[in-house]
Amino acid sequence: MPKAKKSDYLNKNSLVKHIDITQFKDLDKLVAAMGDTSFQARNLSRAADIYDMALRDQNCSIILCLAGSLVSAGLKKVITDLVNSNMVDAIVSTGAIVVDQDFFEGLGFSHYKGTPFVNDAELRDLAIDRIYDHYIDEDELRVCDETMTRIIDGLEPRPYASREIIREMGAYLVKNGKKHDGFVEAAYKKNVPIFVPAFSDCSAGFGIVLHQHERLKAGKPMVSFDSGRDFLDLTYLKMYASQDTGIVMISGGVPKNFTQDTVVAAEVLGHDAPMHKYAIQLTVADERDGALSGSTLKEASSWGKVDLSYEQMVYGEATVTFPLLAGAVYARGAHKARKGRELSNWFEGPNFKYPAEKSKAAGKSKKTAPVGA
Amino acid sequence: MPKAKKSDYLNKNSLVKHIDITQFKDLDKLVAAMGDTSFQARNLSRAADIYDMALRDQNCSIILCLAGSLVSAGLKKVITDLVNSNMVDAIVSTGAIVVDQDFFEGLGFSHYKGTPFVNDAELRDLAIDRIYDHYIDEDELRVCDETMTRIIDGLEPRPYASREIIREMGAYLVKNGKKHDGFVEAAYKKNVPIFVPAFSDCSAGFGIVLHQHERLKAGKPMVSFDSGRDFLDLTYLKMYASQDTGIVMISGGVPKNFTQDTVVAAEVLGHDAPMHKYAIQLTVADERDGALSGSTLKEASSWGKVDLSYEQMVYGEATVTFPLLAGAVYARGAHKARKGRELSNWFEGPNFKYPAEKSKAAGKSKKTAPVGA
Amino acid sequence: MPKAKKSDYLNKNSLVKHIDITQFKDLDKLVAAMGDTSFQARNLSRAADIYDMALRDQNCSIILCLAGSLVSAGLKKVITDLVNSNMVDAIVSTGAIVVDQDFFEGLGFSHYKGTPFVNDAELRDLAIDRIYDHYIDEDELRVCDETMTRIIDGLEPRPYASREIIREMGAYLVKNGKKHDGFVEAAYKKNVPIFVPAFSDCSAGFGIVLHQHERLKAGKPMVSFDSGRDFLDLTYLKMYASQDTGIVMISGGVPKNFTQDTVVAAEVLGHDAPMHKYAIQLTVADERDGALSGSTLKEASSWGKVDLSYEQMVYGEATVTFPLLAGAVYARGAHKARKGRELSNWFEGPNFKYPAEKSKAAGKSKKTAPVGA
Amino acid sequence: MPKAKKSDYLNKNSLVKHIDITQFKDLDKLVAAMGDTSFQARNLSRAADIYDMALRDQNCSIILCLAGSLVSAGLKKVITDLVNSNMVDAIVSTGAIVVDQDFFEGLGFSHYKGTPFVNDAELRDLAIDRIYDHYIDEDELRVCDETMTRIIDGLEPRPYASREIIREMGAYLVKNGKKHDGFVEAAYKKNVPIFVPAFSDCSAGFGIVLHQHERLKAGKPMVSFDSGRDFLDLTYLKMYASQDTGIVMISGGVPKNFTQDTVVAAEVLGHDAPMHKYAIQLTVADERDGALSGSTLKEASSWGKVDLSYEQMVYGEATVTFPLLAGAVYARGAHKARKGRELSNWFEGPNFKYPAEKSKAAGKSKKTAPVGA
Repeated sequence: MPKAKKSDYLNKNSLVKHIDITQFKDLDKLVAAMGDTSFQARNLSRAADIYDMALRDQNCSIILCLAGSLVSAGLKKVITDLVNSNMVDAIVSTGAIVVDQDFFEGLGFSHYKGTPFVNDAELRDLAIDRIYDHYIDEDELRVCDETMTRIIDGLEPRPYASREIIREMGAYLVKNGKKHDGFVEAAYKKNVPIFVPAFSDCSAGFGIVLHQHERLKAGKPMVSFDSGRDFLDLTYLKMYASQDTGIVMISGGVPKNFTQDTVVAAEVLGHDAPMHKYAIQLTVADERDGALSGSTLKEASSWGKVDLSYEQMVYGEATVTFPLLAGAVYARGAHKARKGRELSNWFEGPNFKYPAEKSKAAGKSKKTAPVGA
Repeated sequence: MPKAKKSDYLNKNSLVKHIDITQFKDLDKLVAAMGDTSFQARNLSRAADIYDMALRDQNCSIILCLAGSLVSAGLKKVITDLVNSNMVDAIVSTGAIVVDQDFFEGLGFSHYKGTPFVNDAELRDLAIDRIYDHYIDEDELRVCDETMTRIIDGLEPRPYASREIIREMGAYLVKNGKKHDGFVEAAYKKNVPIFVPAFSDCSAGFGIVLHQHERLKAGKPMVSFDSGRDFLDLTYLKMYASQDTGIVMISGGVPKNFTQDTVVAAEVLGHDAPMHKYAIQLTVADERDGALSGSTLKEASSWGKVDLSYEQMVYGEATVTFPLLAGAVYARGAHKARKGRELSNWFEGPNFKYPAEKSKAAGKSKKTAPVGA
Repeated sequence: MPKAKKSDYLNKNSLVKHIDITQFKDLDKLVAAMGDTSFQARNLSRAADIYDMALRDQNCSIILCLAGSLVSAGLKKVITDLVNSNMVDAIVSTGAIVVDQDFFEGLGFSHYKGTPFVNDAELRDLAIDRIYDHYIDEDELRVCDETMTRIIDGLEPRPYASREIIREMGAYLVKNGKKHDGFVEAAYKKNVPIFVPAFSDCSAGFGIVLHQHERLKAGKPMVSFDSGRDFLDLTYLKMYASQDTGIVMISGGVPKNFTQDTVVAAEVLGHDAPMHKYAIQLTVADERDGALSGSTLKEASSWGKVDLSYEQMVYGEATVTFPLLAGAVYARGAHKARKGRELSNWFEGPNFKYPAEKSKAAGKSKKTAPVGA
Repeated sequence: MPKAKKSDYLNKNSLVKHIDITQFKDLDKLVAAMGDTSFQARNLSRAADIYDMALRDQNCSIILCLAGSLVSAGLKKVITDLVNSNMVDAIVSTGAIVVDQDFFEGLGFSHYKGTPFVNDAELRDLAIDRIYDHYIDEDELRVCDETMTRIIDGLEPRPYASREIIREMGAYLVKNGKKHDGFVEAAYKKNVPIFVPAFSDCSAGFGIVLHQHERLKAGKPMVSFDSGRDFLDLTYLKMYASQDTGIVMISGGVPKNFTQDTVVAAEVLGHDAPMHKYAIQLTVADERDGALSGSTLKEASSWGKVDLSYEQMVYGEATVTFPLLAGAVYARGAHKARKGRELSNWFEGPNFKYPAEKSKAAGKSKKTAPVGA
């Protein structure tokens, strides 16, 4: 048998193509009809109702939490469409989705359909990385790591919240990107801040490791990822920008916990922020092992994080459930009358603009004296 | 019906008690016999074999990865016993396990057995937080948050790797702790470094948020969590301290990915570190949704992270599988002839001691000029 | 609190309504687009391709295998539509779906939306039976049991294959039914045989138990369920009526195994029947516990039951995945050019018409001398 | 690469060996300690308490429900030990466990350890059948099928409850068996009846199919499987032999539902039998898809089948949880003071001995005039 080549696996015919929820009729009717059935179909339908309700709530900001290999799997456009349609006001994500997948594709690269029934040793030899049933070109991933190092190298040495660096990445894509359909770029343009609480756990981690290693050797000051600031910044938004919040969680993990915790963090800062008013989660995890990802939103209410009135867990894998949810809510059209919150405008560099300053800032933005300058 | 009181739920009779794997005979025989059966019992048996093999490998360091509500569920002593028996050389964990659970209990607090079939609204009124089937006193958790703020307040303002702060927590427990059976304290004493890559996603996050908020208001310099440094430090260990590594993963999440990635990070730093030589994971997640927690170790080998020869997934919930695994491997006694690697000694404050420096340091530790001073 | 009444739970507003896959546009486009994504969406898309391919295969009969609470959950019309559209040639099912759910609704009764978060003791007091998140009126279920007894009482005492009795049920519904949208009635009219290998494990079981109990007391001959004949009859169909078969499995359980086994049974009878040529399964079970429901179709191929070329597992809950699958395949329209196989015509009472007899029978059906007369 | 031979897969070194729960010390202590932890360990511990309680309840009979590939996986001796220790009074099982696995081994055959990562096409060529991670010799399975045909051929032609035929199988093994450590033989000797409600869905099905096929061709009367009688017989036991019952369910499926339903069946016969007093289930299924296998015992109580006081679900795979459960309960020793109920003695051939007759029968068994003679 002749030896396999990389192009046997990664080629034009095997490209993952991102699903476009704006192209299908009747997703709203389908999901509405599911509301009179049972089990996960009915849960999905109720989740869509809650998301729709949150969008029509004038005082409510939507936080989208992302985990799992969503973008590599073909859900990039779903997220981008939500951002561009003012259906999302802030994003909290794993690093892989933001950097290794969305930003990576923005650099011009792609993901490739494959199969789990493959010889991993052969893939390793070909420098092909596997995510269950699809593939990545490891050499292209290295380019992504290096791009991150270069972006970080270009920053003034100090601690950074992830949202700052991800804005830099958005700006980079606007200027240097080869594909412009990703959500990092869309969020940059729509002033939707993106938080990655475990920012070193992805391609950005490889970027920062190389940056810090070289600065250490050179004895020079360096950039660091300030994950405490991520938490503080998101908590400030909860306290000042939008007390009423709806959280749309795709999978669980750190983004879920981190976002839910902002209610408690506000309390720690002496601020009585309301619980998240609307909360839905699409997940395959379950509660019976006691882990965070599958913990129910009812359980979260015992912690004072999530209100019991409008919460819904939907158990199902996201490639199927997320397009249905997003497509149905999009089709109902609540977004048409909704303005984006542009929550990024509450920040200026590392600083948060307290409300007083912000209102002033609206008039003459240059004169603000933001917190933490 | 008279209103419930907190003590109806949280009392002496409902205490979670930590299981002691050193007290049961024949766990090694049981798990060995499982090796001739099938399904998860056989997988568990093979995982024990691999762990035992890794312990007997002179050149191999063991990294224990922790996720899920392990300590609150009664597995604290299992982890502590592994640390004290030189069966673990480094720990990578979620923040909740380290801070909200182990450190929390070290402060004198406890977890309480409960049930998932309970009214969460009532729990909320009583300030009782629920983790599936057990409870935490929310007021005690606030004491934990505040203790974290106080510890952080006492630090020189600069970016910190989590391992540094967790060592401070260990030292704090030695001096001020009320229970001394936790793994944070044990790891401190045994020089086992603990890394928490998403350190703001736990009670330490509440601590840092309050610290930074007050420093910002006062216009003063502050502590930050440098998650990039966490990654760099663990990668340095992989590069210089112990090229051969075995990873024992309880659940998945960030600790799993982060630890596996050190092989790639070493490569990014121009260092050809070998893949993790031994790798086992106990998990309930599965690979079919493509998420990281359930991704197989075979898949990880396509990324060049894990060697295919000695890897084993075990699908089962950790309260059942972890005591069996740890108990069986402990009973086989490989640890008796094994010295702890004391990997914490490679660090001095924020700095990593490169090998040359380290050997010098052994003689005259004060004169080293560590990297990154 | 005043005591709850049955009508608080079971009323017009809480009716489960059956989803109508013929009413939504673009399900085919949606499912086709999923084919370029990953994970279960791509699997679902491939399953639809395989089902479509099987329908276009001139020589292929389709066997639909049903398990799980499908009809009570709102999927009755999906199944009925498949039958009426010549997309199914035989059905193998659990008893509950056929008797307690479809036949039950045909008698004029309904299922009601509820919630899993309910006091089961209260439901018990109200004679309401719960299926996870929906309800059944237990008194109405007793009427169903009694109707079954009456139907069985009316039969000549001898052993019966389930398909015979289920045809009687279909005939009963045509004459006495109050709703005529079920698949038992549709299958009766379209000559689609229905097999229930574990026929005593449902409301038919209550019917037969009462029948036999009374006949025993009276010392009279009685009806019995001959599950061996079920197996023989389905095997005869595989041998003589349609060697090429496609199996569409919704959930696993006995129907899955039973149907797959017909290939082996044919072999036992000295007949070299081909493996099932097309096979898809929608399920939440997984293979890691080694049980039948989650066993992969690849595994089934080691047993010589299923061909490897066109098989696809789809992991997801059926209320979401089955309407998508059925709706997409329906929309592609292969059924328009397809004739129903009318496999019931191979049987005459308890007897199977061997091919020679059958062709004769076509001309002069009264003169056949069927096997087993 | 030279072609693989059958013996490369099936040989002395790859034999599945049955785990012996009587050989390990401290399983009771281990499982008791798990009762103060959480999640599934605590559930397992409570399940053991309930099983132990049921054994000490003088008026209670224990029904063991079996599904999943338990015997092939190495759990045969666990079941046999329970039978021999008077810890089980009746068994309700899938056919595969009873016929294809236990009886099959009794004929002298074995199961072999393998791996799921294997080429199924190659196995097919070698006539090796795979069950996830272990193998069966298909040729040996044919011998089992044929033996079943021979046993059935030897019976007087009439409808049979499965328990009758399984007793014949037990008797066959006593006389002709090559291994005598199975539970079919043990149950025969201990007068523990075994019910298989879906008896045609296993090797017995191949046996009956061949038997009936040949009788049909010869125009002769034949044996049939009367699954209604199975249900009636188990219901009679519930009504007359032992009103108080404890059910120990390993996995779900038909045996679970069938056994629970006897309470309702008794009611249908005008007999007010109490709900199952004790009920535990070990399973990997979950309730969120609404299917029977994962339906909770609380849900069953809404149907009036299971009492709420002593019920416990344990979520975990049976090769790990069943030896722990059985081993712990065995070690507590309740069985030492317990007599077997010998429920088989309530039957005489096809007939059930009503209590009056039974007491008479105790004295002069020949004169009974059993029901249904």
